[in-house]
Amino acid sequence: MNIDMIEAAAARLAGHARVTPLLSSPFLDEIAGRRVFVKAECLQHTGSFKFRGAWSALSGMPQAQRAGGVIAFSSGNHAQGVARAAQQHETRAVIVMPSDAPRLKIVNTRAFGAEVVEYDRTTEDRDALGAELAESQGLTLVRPFDDPQVIAGQGTVGLELADQARAAGVRQADVLIPCGGGGLTGGIALALEARAPHLRPRPVEPQGFDDVARSLSAGRIERNPALVGSLCDAIITPAPGQITFPIMARHCGPGIVVSDEDALRAMAAAFTRLKLVLEPGGAVALAAALFHPETAVGDAVIAVASGGNVDSAFFTRALELYGA
Amino acid sequence: MNIDMIEAAAARLAGHARVTPLLSSPFLDEIAGRRVFVKAECLQHTGSFKFRGAWSALSGMPQAQRAGGVIAFSSGNHAQGVARAAQQHETRAVIVMPSDAPRLKIVNTRAFGAEVVEYDRTTEDRDALGAELAESQGLTLVRPFDDPQVIAGQGTVGLELADQARAAGVRQADVLIPCGGGGLTGGIALALEARAPHLRPRPVEPQGFDDVARSLSAGRIERNPALVGSLCDAIITPAPGQITFPIMARHCGPGIVVSDEDALRAMAAAFTRLKLVLEPGGAVALAAALFHPETAVGDAVIAVASGGNVDSAFFTRALELYGA
Repeated sequence: MNIDMIEAAAARLAGHARVTPLLSSPFLDEIAGRRVFVKAECLQHTGSFKFRGAWSALSGMPQAQRAGGVIAFSSGNHAQGVARAAQQHETRAVIVMPSDAPRLKIVNTRAFGAEVVEYDRTTEDRDALGAELAESQGLTLVRPFDDPQVIAGQGTVGLELADQARAAGVRQADVLIPCGGGGLTGGIALALEARAPHLRPRPVEPQGFDDVARSLSAGRIERNPALVGSLCDAIITPAPGQITFPIMARHCGPGIVVSDEDALRAMAAAFTRLKLVLEPGGAVALAAALFHPETAVGDAVIAVASGGNVDSAFFTRALELYGA
Repeated sequence: MNIDMIEAAAARLAGHARVTPLLSSPFLDEIAGRRVFVKAECLQHTGSFKFRGAWSALSGMPQAQRAGGVIAFSSGNHAQGVARAAQQHETRAVIVMPSDAPRLKIVNTRAFGAEVVEYDRTTEDRDALGAELAESQGLTLVRPFDDPQVIAGQGTVGLELADQARAAGVRQADVLIPCGGGGLTGGIALALEARAPHLRPRPVEPQGFDDVARSLSAGRIERNPALVGSLCDAIITPAPGQITFPIMARHCGPGIVVSDEDALRAMAAAFTRLKLVLEPGGAVALAAALFHPETAVGDAVIAVASGGNVDSAFFTRALELYGA
């Protein structure tokens, strides 16, 4: 993994993924006590950064392999990213989803042309089912984060950030990144190391699900004790990846942990001040920037707003609790 | 008024106003039956396009005049636009607002450094009060729409649209624009005439407040019978302007009228599909694109989403009624 792979991914993504804006508001600056910039990746196609990695993976495959179709396991943002990237590459996408996933996510994934295969979480083995499908149907697995081309795709966020931070006159800043398995964080870290070493990447996780922060602190991969119980479900993974962890260990500052309440407050702030819709997991970095400013260094702080796929009932709850 | 003034405004706005993105979603295309593009002007500084016109007016004044300060009448988006533009130009802004305006709007306007002068709508004459203040304190009035420099500033939306539509491969499209007094519509119309004549500007108004549509149809300025009673209050004005109307009459296609219900449904669609927060008045063009597709021509339709300044209680209501 190196910057050349990210540059190559950026060339493949050009004209297909959006260059998302870097937004700001003096009201957020005032809360944080320094300039706050928000990389609005919720405006990416399919509502999250995952489309970048999926497009990178699909476009980076040999044509014959891609023509055989792809498979992914996901009930969320990765599913939609892979489905849309496959649809635009005119190839099959099979998405394996738990049968108790929210209907809307299944409907959206199907709407992008994917074949959704449902399985029973309590009785069926997802990995075995997926392996069987991939094998029997000649499909290529697109992993959600621990794949070099996926990381390279997410790293294009970092290339854009390097340019946008320069244009905004940022001298030194922490770049706060919602972190699950580390595909986005690792990709951005590699891009910043090469293009903007004065910007320091830092993973942000929900309280109680801080496997990456603990792994960085321990110097080895640590696992989450549980995988359910956070509102920020989109960024909960068992542990950092075999590929992503060494990258993060080399380039990232310490991890930051925020509460579900912080995430909901950040959603309300993004609504009022930026006119953006964020999902809880997509709002944790902004939450850290606004409500834990003491953890960051620099004349500015950059928060990646990684996704906005939240249903209206949930969003309404966040506004009722913390909206102006 | 001509394209040179808009070009000059664009040069003054460069680096100060945002180039807002042109967004899309296949789900919106499906509703409308053609490609739909949304110019996300709610992401502009202060949450609406009004900042462009205000910046253009302030930056276009002789320095000595600007140094004397400016005054504006507004309880909404124009107030915030003028306040922020004046703050950044390091000059005074006096904003005359009704004392029964929402507290949040008064607070936000003050937060941009403006002096808010409140008046009693039932007993005081706003124009007389403003004229007295301007005269006694040497302030320059910044009109909300019927001012060449303001129109030129709003017209920069049209310059961006011409480039963005070309990049998106749009061959022929109607450009639907939320329309109050016609500053945004007129400015965009002039820009498109010069730069993208295959894009036809069309004003969109709330049902019952269709002064512009009726004026265009009659060929002379017609007034609204009432000024209250629409959820889309941000775009209700008594009549099109003396400067804006002739521009619109020369360049625009017929006006389009949408219901409050259509506007709320468009807000919900922008939430779900674009991750954008729109206010009702800012959503009327998207409403027309989605729910009245028979009125438009072309292989695509472009809707300007002009603002996102809506409080959370109101937004919640729209989601509860029409959210997914």
